[in-house]
Amino acid sequence: MALSYIGMNTMLQTVEVSGIVAFASSGIIEARRKRMDVVGVFTVAFITAFGGGTLRDLLLDRRPLFWVAHQQYPILVFVMALIAVPLLRHLRHAMAEKAIIFADALGLGLFSVTGASLALEVGMPLFVCAMMGVITGIFGGVLRDVICNEIPLVFRRSQLYATCSFLGCWVYLLLNRVQVAEIVALLSGTLIAFVLRMMALRFDWKLPA
Amino acid sequence: MALSYIGMNTMLQTVEVSGIVAFASSGIIEARRKRMDVVGVFTVAFITAFGGGTLRDLLLDRRPLFWVAHQQYPILVFVMALIAVPLLRHLRHAMAEKAIIFADALGLGLFSVTGASLALEVGMPLFVCAMMGVITGIFGGVLRDVICNEIPLVFRRSQLYATCSFLGCWVYLLLNRVQVAEIVALLSGTLIAFVLRMMALRFDWKLPA
Amino acid sequence: MALSYIGMNTMLQTVEVSGIVAFASSGIIEARRKRMDVVGVFTVAFITAFGGGTLRDLLLDRRPLFWVAHQQYPILVFVMALIAVPLLRHLRHAMAEKAIIFADALGLGLFSVTGASLALEVGMPLFVCAMMGVITGIFGGVLRDVICNEIPLVFRRSQLYATCSFLGCWVYLLLNRVQVAEIVALLSGTLIAFVLRMMALRFDWKLPA
Repeated sequence: MALSYIGMNTMLQTVEVSGIVAFASSGIIEARRKRMDVVGVFTVAFITAFGGGTLRDLLLDRRPLFWVAHQQYPILVFVMALIAVPLLRHLRHAMAEKAIIFADALGLGLFSVTGASLALEVGMPLFVCAMMGVITGIFGGVLRDVICNEIPLVFRRSQLYATCSFLGCWVYLLLNRVQVAEIVALLSGTLIAFVLRMMALRFDWKLPA
Repeated sequence: MALSYIGMNTMLQTVEVSGIVAFASSGIIEARRKRMDVVGVFTVAFITAFGGGTLRDLLLDRRPLFWVAHQQYPILVFVMALIAVPLLRHLRHAMAEKAIIFADALGLGLFSVTGASLALEVGMPLFVCAMMGVITGIFGGVLRDVICNEIPLVFRRSQLYATCSFLGCWVYLLLNRVQVAEIVALLSGTLIAFVLRMMALRFDWKLPA
Repeated sequence: MALSYIGMNTMLQTVEVSGIVAFASSGIIEARRKRMDVVGVFTVAFITAFGGGTLRDLLLDRRPLFWVAHQQYPILVFVMALIAVPLLRHLRHAMAEKAIIFADALGLGLFSVTGASLALEVGMPLFVCAMMGVITGIFGGVLRDVICNEIPLVFRRSQLYATCSFLGCWVYLLLNRVQVAEIVALLSGTLIAFVLRMMALRFDWKLPA
């Protein structure tokens, strides 16, 4: 918490842009696999990238919404969708599958921790901060899957998903509590969530049913 | 309306906790039937218990949200989910079915009337109060069913469902209008909605198609 | 922008009522085809008519919601649902299909342009205004289709849909920019979106996949 408000804001913004690109990519690839046209691709990318953060902003009553305050965010996704349609025409299925999983895990880590951080900033209690992080991290992907008529990844695959987000948020919140530099806390939480998710997929980690 | 604001608040809170436990139970049982892990069970329980009230708070612009202001509510559901997974392992199907239906009917009555009461408190017109009650009462269950990949109970089974909520709300609103003690109005509305729902199931009451 | 605030408000309201009737009709017809009872018909009509505008109001933080400020709107839909059930009992399938498509296209144009106009009024950047218009125009129909267990029209049929809304919004925004009288800008945008949608259906216009 030693950082100035402006510094922290810039940092969160950088993290946010990376998360947007990661999630938008996963949405674009998924929509292309369903052979949607450019408008469908943009819509799915937009909802995947902004769904979680929008729900978080609605719940925390933050206005203007983050993608309204930064008009360049939706325009970025719009341009990504326009470029992607011709580019991805020849992407092979197996590679697309891998790319989605990687982008999704990165977006999950980035968005979860940002969400927890923003909830902390407006003075929410700790458990609520962790939940806001999870909501920010998983909700965009849930909407993407619902629209593409798949059972959401988070429920379908039993490898740890929401759990990675939840643990990453707690790592961030605890490091923040013990006065670790904000940037270190943010990156540690993100990394934990991302690495946990990739390892859960690799080693087929599941919770007991 | 003779009651003080604080008294009414405590009352609403008691009703709210009962509704949360009832709906969370129905979510837990449904998620267990789909063999979800503990995170899935918590998520479904959380959404069932808080979905309707969250939508109501968003629509009425009440902040902080009721489960944010009371961190103990989501923690309660979290603990319920943790305990329930081992406990429910051997629950038989037929009993689970009955328990869901009972808990769901109770939650429906409790949440509908609370929703109408909160809308009234912020000066909404009567018809809007009744609609807010219905939204609070049915939306959590609709989300539970959508996530568990069932057609929502409220649309699937043609026995009266939303209608019970609607009538319970009007009973509360009318009793409140004629200056009946608030607690009596609240309990009457809840009871009417609950009993109507149980009778609709028992005697297979349906609206004409 | 030469019009007074009050004049513009009345105009938007007339447009809004027409859009509500158009979308509610499409919801009623769809719900009847699924043989829902009167409560189901009302619910679907309500969600179709108010879903897009409610999401817009939540995103723009406009309160009270437009259907809360105008209690007569939901009551109008309620009465429409009550009348429609006996009236539509003998409507033939082919006619219902045509009526839905026409009502849906009209609602799309009306709601898109109103949404863009309201976003402009609260000072949103242009691209965000266009997106708010699209959200207002298509979201009610998406919810209608999800509830009726259809893949949303906007994704299912590849004839231009969201694109018509998007272009109609830009026509309105550009005419507004060059100081054309507000009523002319509103009507032009609506007409463009409506005519484009009807022509896309007639001549099977699609975007490249």
